[in-house]
Amino acid sequence: MDKRPIGVFDSGLGGLSCVKEIMKIMPNEDVIYFGDTGRVPYGTRSRETIIKYVRQDIRFLEGFDIKAIIIACGTASSAALPWIADENDTKIMGVVEPAAKAAVSATKNKKIGVLGTGATVKYGKYASNIKALCPDAEIVQKACPLFVPLVENGYTDSDVARLIAAEYLEDMKKKSVDTLILGCTHYPLLKKVIGDIMGKDVTLIDSGAMAASAAYEFLKQESLLNESGENGKYRYFVSDSVEDFSALGGMFLDRPIKESVEKIDIEGF
Amino acid sequence: MDKRPIGVFDSGLGGLSCVKEIMKIMPNEDVIYFGDTGRVPYGTRSRETIIKYVRQDIRFLEGFDIKAIIIACGTASSAALPWIADENDTKIMGVVEPAAKAAVSATKNKKIGVLGTGATVKYGKYASNIKALCPDAEIVQKACPLFVPLVENGYTDSDVARLIAAEYLEDMKKKSVDTLILGCTHYPLLKKVIGDIMGKDVTLIDSGAMAASAAYEFLKQESLLNESGENGKYRYFVSDSVEDFSALGGMFLDRPIKESVEKIDIEGF
Repeated sequence: MDKRPIGVFDSGLGGLSCVKEIMKIMPNEDVIYFGDTGRVPYGTRSRETIIKYVRQDIRFLEGFDIKAIIIACGTASSAALPWIADENDTKIMGVVEPAAKAAVSATKNKKIGVLGTGATVKYGKYASNIKALCPDAEIVQKACPLFVPLVENGYTDSDVARLIAAEYLEDMKKKSVDTLILGCTHYPLLKKVIGDIMGKDVTLIDSGAMAASAAYEFLKQESLLNESGENGKYRYFVSDSVEDFSALGGMFLDRPIKESVEKIDIEGF
Repeated sequence: MDKRPIGVFDSGLGGLSCVKEIMKIMPNEDVIYFGDTGRVPYGTRSRETIIKYVRQDIRFLEGFDIKAIIIACGTASSAALPWIADENDTKIMGVVEPAAKAAVSATKNKKIGVLGTGATVKYGKYASNIKALCPDAEIVQKACPLFVPLVENGYTDSDVARLIAAEYLEDMKKKSVDTLILGCTHYPLLKKVIGDIMGKDVTLIDSGAMAASAAYEFLKQESLLNESGENGKYRYFVSDSVEDFSALGGMFLDRPIKESVEKIDIEGF
């Protein structure tokens, strides 16, 4: 047993969809969350910049006595993790591998769709992970650059979201994918809009939730789960306004953020 | 006469709509442009963060031998400039005052609309500048958080842009404004969409272009104009990928960016 907290970070709010799943399946775990709200979004930036930001995010979390880090961000997992995985002593897990595994398990027709940010699609890590598990899978990728701003501005169930989603999903429907990875942790908030367009028979894979499940399996296997029976404690850190984070974060967690949120200067790490 | 360059900066690409006007009305002036593409957008961030970023942007430009700085960004001009105006030896001009002045000159019914980012509307500097010039003006403000992502993703003339613009402009139409300030330097790229909705009788004020005109007046008055007769030279600096900037920048300038674009580490300033 290991009572140390799990570190989780994202470019902003999206990673809270992973924390929501941690709260559900590992209610005893303490979590330290960092949302880089001062530099969100990551998905439109170059790999060089994303790697720089991710290194700082990891350095910040490593300042706590943590047992593992989850990169709860599709962009950072795709465009940074493969290049920096060997740099750290701490166990670092991303969202790509677990989501690819879940998609391969779920698909029947071997046609799998991947929705992500520009950077996520560019580096194709969901696709290469799927191919490694299922070489004859047909993969349809689509960059959805407007989804993050839509979610962050509360347009989760709106005509605007439906119009944009219909455009982004056109190819997915044409090619009859039966499984669709929501490859950015912001996208679960658009699950209803995406699900309505794709139809009931298409399985949507929530990458943040899958990363939480994979973390559970890892901690269990390594005997690192917190089995104290006590309720987990949560600490939130951001790089911009704490008020905005508290107000919007509840949307992702499906419960209000009552804990204090602290602002840090991430550029100093 | 002063042959030193003018420094211009913005959170990203939008400020190029001001540079476009400088090229037109002051073709001899050299320009050093900085686009903070590694930290764009500014409009959704807190004032504290915006001020920190703007101080770094100014410090970077002051490293060159410049004669003045134009903050070609509605957000930075609204949420930072009034608080830091006295900190610098260099002459610093924003987009708010010139646009407010132009709107007051243009309006007949004294009903003026202001479109801007969340931060711009929150600090209400366009409104207070209009009120100072025309105390009985009726001002309608609207935050348009999706306009910057729309423009940066090329959705300038699209159904999505029209749907979102119709929503943002509803109140402006209801209240019959006859003059509308495009209070963010990204918005001129949506001029057609906005103009179609507002109708021909509404005057659209381009804040970046107005800032360039105001800079011309200032330089002329102070005998600082470059009257060498030589074509102006342009240098561009960004805090993220130079390729993306070169590719998209032409859209704002209405001519391709042929000059070299250099990447800098703005966090070091």
